Amino acid sequence: MRTVRAFAFDAYGTLFDVHSVVAECRKVTPEAEALSTLWRAKQLEYTWLRALMGRYEDFWSVTDAALRFATRRLNLRLDPAQHARLLEAYLRLEAYPEIPKMVEALRGYPLAVLSNGSPRMLEAVVEHTGLKPHFAHVISVDAVRSYKPSPGVYALGPQRLGVPREEIVFVSSNSFDVIGAKAFGYRVCWVNRAGAPLDELGMAPDATVSRLDELPKALGL
Amino acid sequence: MRTVRAFAFDAYGTLFDVHSVVAECRKVTPEAEALSTLWRAKQLEYTWLRALMGRYEDFWSVTDAALRFATRRLNLRLDPAQHARLLEAYLRLEAYPEIPKMVEALRGYPLAVLSNGSPRMLEAVVEHTGLKPHFAHVISVDAVRSYKPSPGVYALGPQRLGVPREEIVFVSSNSFDVIGAKAFGYRVCWVNRAGAPLDELGMAPDATVSRLDELPKALGL
Repeated sequence: MRTVRAFAFDAYGTLFDVHSVVAECRKVTPEAEALSTLWRAKQLEYTWLRALMGRYEDFWSVTDAALRFATRRLNLRLDPAQHARLLEAYLRLEAYPEIPKMVEALRGYPLAVLSNGSPRMLEAVVEHTGLKPHFAHVISVDAVRSYKPSPGVYALGPQRLGVPREEIVFVSSNSFDVIGAKAFGYRVCWVNRAGAPLDELGMAPDATVSRLDELPKALGL
Repeated sequence: MRTVRAFAFDAYGTLFDVHSVVAECRKVTPEAEALSTLWRAKQLEYTWLRALMGRYEDFWSVTDAALRFATRRLNLRLDPAQHARLLEAYLRLEAYPEIPKMVEALRGYPLAVLSNGSPRMLEAVVEHTGLKPHFAHVISVDAVRSYKPSPGVYALGPQRLGVPREEIVFVSSNSFDVIGAKAFGYRVCWVNRAGAPLDELGMAPDATVSRLDELPKALGL
């Protein structure tokens, strides 16, 4: 097994809880869970479709469009201020509570965020959560105008970290991202908080944890 | 407006009712609707993810994998024969009942099927439904080893029909397919049977119908 020399983390769902938008959704509808879930599903779907069509728009625009679709489908009539407040919840997501413990245990390793988020969105959320000092690199797919799981996106990790892909542990809670990162050639750890089944795409992570602070032990560090 | 010289139809959900697998699902679970819906959602998701990763496998394999995932997530334990019977339902989907009337009204125009389906799956279902004599071309994405909405897939239509894209009407019930076809440059008709909202991807069809036999009138033919 190659030495681990660096870590790259997915952002949304991995470091930051996307369902912390549920609280904001509750202010506009009793169907807050349904809105949050549909919004997230469409957000991902739109990234895949735009990447496949070669019609990139940044993640802020995609997240906005996904919210418009979700509210229309659920027959919610939001005024522009309500819509804006929901969208802005993405700039103030909560970080998972075990992160300080994980960061402490990984002291000495360069840590990166590698995310679909636009540079502005990522900057805002790492600042808001106080994680900024711990991540040497905050890498947005925007640099290549495509989305995960496109290999060109994952290639940004080794390029920016200056470390070969096999020596970087890529950490994600999103099954499709785990598979995309593995297909690219990272060493991969899946944060499977909900005990979900892995997607059936012919690829499996090297390690699986249920919380981020289990990472060092799961990797034998 | 350019003359209409040919038609290309999506297969699954457009000519053939994918939820006719529900009857088969009912034989294995009381949650037949949930199984059918999750199976279909994962089937599409896996086509997008495989196309983006550059890891094409044909639609039979993807449909098989999506069924494995869906049954695991719903905690259904199917024996291999039950699994095979569900999968084979894709070879015997029902055609929508208004198709004979539509085919009659479009007599004289070359008609094509342009589908994610593998050549074997498409051959089986056009044969089973008796539609084979009406479609001059049955075109599978397998020729380019990618999936909708990749532009390379849509390019197969003008190539095989020998007609410029602007003079082909592309017909689909799937919102993402409507948008992909429009982005490519077809004239596009959306068969919106359920009155669903259009996906928010910055693209709209030229015409919308609720049944296939409304097609000639909607296009002013």
